[in-house]
Amino acid sequence: MPKKRKLGRGVAVVGAGLSKFGIYPKGVRGQDLFVEAYNELRSSVDKGFDPGDIDALYLGNISSDLFERQVHIAPAVANRIGIVPKPAIRFEDACAASGVAFREAIIAISSGIYDIVLAGGLEKMTNLDTTQVTEVLAAAMDPDTEIPAGETFPGIYATIATAHMAKYGTEVEDFMRLGIKNHYNGSLNPHAHFDASIPDIMKRRAASAVKKGLPEPHWADEMEFLHDPKQNPVIAWPMRLFDCSTICDGASCVLLAAEDIARNFTDKPIFVIGTGQASDYFLAERKELASIRATKLAAREAYEMAGVSPQDIKIAEVHDCFTIAELVAMEDLGFYKPGEAVKAIREGENRLDGKLPINTDGGLKAKGHPIGASGVGMVVEIFKQLRGEAGPRQVKKKDVDLGLTHNAGAHGSTIVVNIFQRR
Amino acid sequence: MPKKRKLGRGVAVVGAGLSKFGIYPKGVRGQDLFVEAYNELRSSVDKGFDPGDIDALYLGNISSDLFERQVHIAPAVANRIGIVPKPAIRFEDACAASGVAFREAIIAISSGIYDIVLAGGLEKMTNLDTTQVTEVLAAAMDPDTEIPAGETFPGIYATIATAHMAKYGTEVEDFMRLGIKNHYNGSLNPHAHFDASIPDIMKRRAASAVKKGLPEPHWADEMEFLHDPKQNPVIAWPMRLFDCSTICDGASCVLLAAEDIARNFTDKPIFVIGTGQASDYFLAERKELASIRATKLAAREAYEMAGVSPQDIKIAEVHDCFTIAELVAMEDLGFYKPGEAVKAIREGENRLDGKLPINTDGGLKAKGHPIGASGVGMVVEIFKQLRGEAGPRQVKKKDVDLGLTHNAGAHGSTIVVNIFQRR
Repeated sequence: MPKKRKLGRGVAVVGAGLSKFGIYPKGVRGQDLFVEAYNELRSSVDKGFDPGDIDALYLGNISSDLFERQVHIAPAVANRIGIVPKPAIRFEDACAASGVAFREAIIAISSGIYDIVLAGGLEKMTNLDTTQVTEVLAAAMDPDTEIPAGETFPGIYATIATAHMAKYGTEVEDFMRLGIKNHYNGSLNPHAHFDASIPDIMKRRAASAVKKGLPEPHWADEMEFLHDPKQNPVIAWPMRLFDCSTICDGASCVLLAAEDIARNFTDKPIFVIGTGQASDYFLAERKELASIRATKLAAREAYEMAGVSPQDIKIAEVHDCFTIAELVAMEDLGFYKPGEAVKAIREGENRLDGKLPINTDGGLKAKGHPIGASGVGMVVEIFKQLRGEAGPRQVKKKDVDLGLTHNAGAHGSTIVVNIFQRR
Repeated sequence: MPKKRKLGRGVAVVGAGLSKFGIYPKGVRGQDLFVEAYNELRSSVDKGFDPGDIDALYLGNISSDLFERQVHIAPAVANRIGIVPKPAIRFEDACAASGVAFREAIIAISSGIYDIVLAGGLEKMTNLDTTQVTEVLAAAMDPDTEIPAGETFPGIYATIATAHMAKYGTEVEDFMRLGIKNHYNGSLNPHAHFDASIPDIMKRRAASAVKKGLPEPHWADEMEFLHDPKQNPVIAWPMRLFDCSTICDGASCVLLAAEDIARNFTDKPIFVIGTGQASDYFLAERKELASIRATKLAAREAYEMAGVSPQDIKIAEVHDCFTIAELVAMEDLGFYKPGEAVKAIREGENRLDGKLPINTDGGLKAKGHPIGASGVGMVVEIFKQLRGEAGPRQVKKKDVDLGLTHNAGAHGSTIVVNIFQRR
């Protein structure tokens, strides 16, 4: 039984920014995208702020080393945004890099050592080709049992997917439904990699469905398209192309302030009321494959700290590096009992107008997954949704006051869960 | 004028361990060395502890990505030492990686979210050859002004050295004296890369001088040897081979506990009473080359938090990636006025029996510089010295109750300073 954790001082998100996610030329650096995200953040802080008041930069990044042949990027970014000599730190926990940076920033403000921290992340992945990127990401696996066996992450998540299918009767169409929902949402998000402008079949179909006002779970045309092995080839069965998140470039950041000064920045701060983190073994050592234990543990810590239950959450951003990852997270976070998330998926419960909207920004699937940027990218979306500033994808029901983010590193060897409240 | 920082709750070091620093075969992983360091730590905690009580692992590492083709190493290490599902995070700020991990661990305990944190670092550098390692390290420089200009770190520190020589009349022999002192100390340290067993000329000379009881500043034979361009070639003038720290493999760790529970682990906890961190520009943008501004700022934060002055410090570990770096740190930390450290060096003030012993473990110069392990490696030495457990290199004067560590990332773009007290 883990100890009950608490924070010494409250913390709020008072500003947020995202670069456009997508494929940028080789000459564009990850730090250039961070500057773009930071500029958006600056204009989001309605009462304004002096960058000189930022006490520290907490930056997530999986491997500028292998992607950009650059290390020690945190002070370089601090320099670009004009906050030298403030402390600047890079955090790495695979795909949970900026989730961890965000959580550590909360902890630091809570300790009293800092009052205002800029937390974010960046990744410039597309300097390498898809095979090379796949190899870089596979370096986050176990060098004893996984890498030598030729595993890559589509294979790892395919294993989780087949375990889930065997245990609960989950069907490939359930994965497809999640992909359709997320592409639908992404088509409404101008920052998404697969936004409304990209000449992509899936996007055009989603956009056309939006126009027709079609509810996602009944998109028969799309389902037919997704079963077509030419349009949607198998990557690692049952994961097909449209079950995999996109390799892209991007950056994200949020401005965090101590609770007592949060309203100096904005009248609509979003408070962080719970945070949890846990680690797990590599796949071969786990007792259960159809679930990620670290998600359950991190979520329990966050719920207990926040004093809320899974049923209180009104909107969530969960780590859908693959569609199966979203499904498993829905269960491990306690939104649905094991094996029962499919029912919600089939009934469209997680679409924008559903009971519990999930990945309203398109998720990693359609918004894109520039690794280091993804964790804080989720926080940016919850911030916008809880403030009612998410534009055409804004969740419209009145009581959206409690949101959750779930960020996973690798196959869930690191999980970070955060809970947010509008007061 | 920076804000005065303080910690909410006191923190102490209650255990420490180091792997042997040196060159290991390719089959040995950085995480294997961490296990070695952790086992030493376990035996250093005299009242014992249950590894299950460790709340989190904070791990420094510059680039397992490029050195070992491995990312997400923190949960992998957590798994090796049996503390899954506890949170595990990798920190990277170039050569200050574990200095930053250590500081963040202090902040986390201070916040109240954790009570017991394992902070450490590791690096397995020697899978690559010296040219490749030099290129990896150079990736911590500015991609605009430094890398394209063909700079490497010996060149950067040679620039700082010549600036110091021009401004203060510092002589190459002053750098050599620092190298002799550190090799002398290293020869007394069984964990050092250049310990008493390595068949190395410099080591043999130092060991023989130890036997003869010679005081370092008067080692005429050694000075002659160091001027020999064959034995001690110029790397980047005025930095010669024996002015440069060693490329090697190693790991370090310390167990940190909240002040109120520290004596459950040991009757001799060493308290962390001050910590500071700052960043700086790349070299081309700095106004002053003979000094590192971030050291001054980080030190000021740490001194103010601790309520002590530089003259109160009884022993220090400073970042001597090159001999000039130690000299500049001695001035920037306030131990000596600008241009006056050379006087102390010439008078042997910083040797084991001097007024202010510095780098008693051999420093990065002779103990070795396995990048990610170095910052916490310094803490391990201060912990041992303040407890009177440093063996043949133990500083003997009675009042050694206040120690300092200074860890630099790259050319001082990141600096972390910590202050320790025996009570």
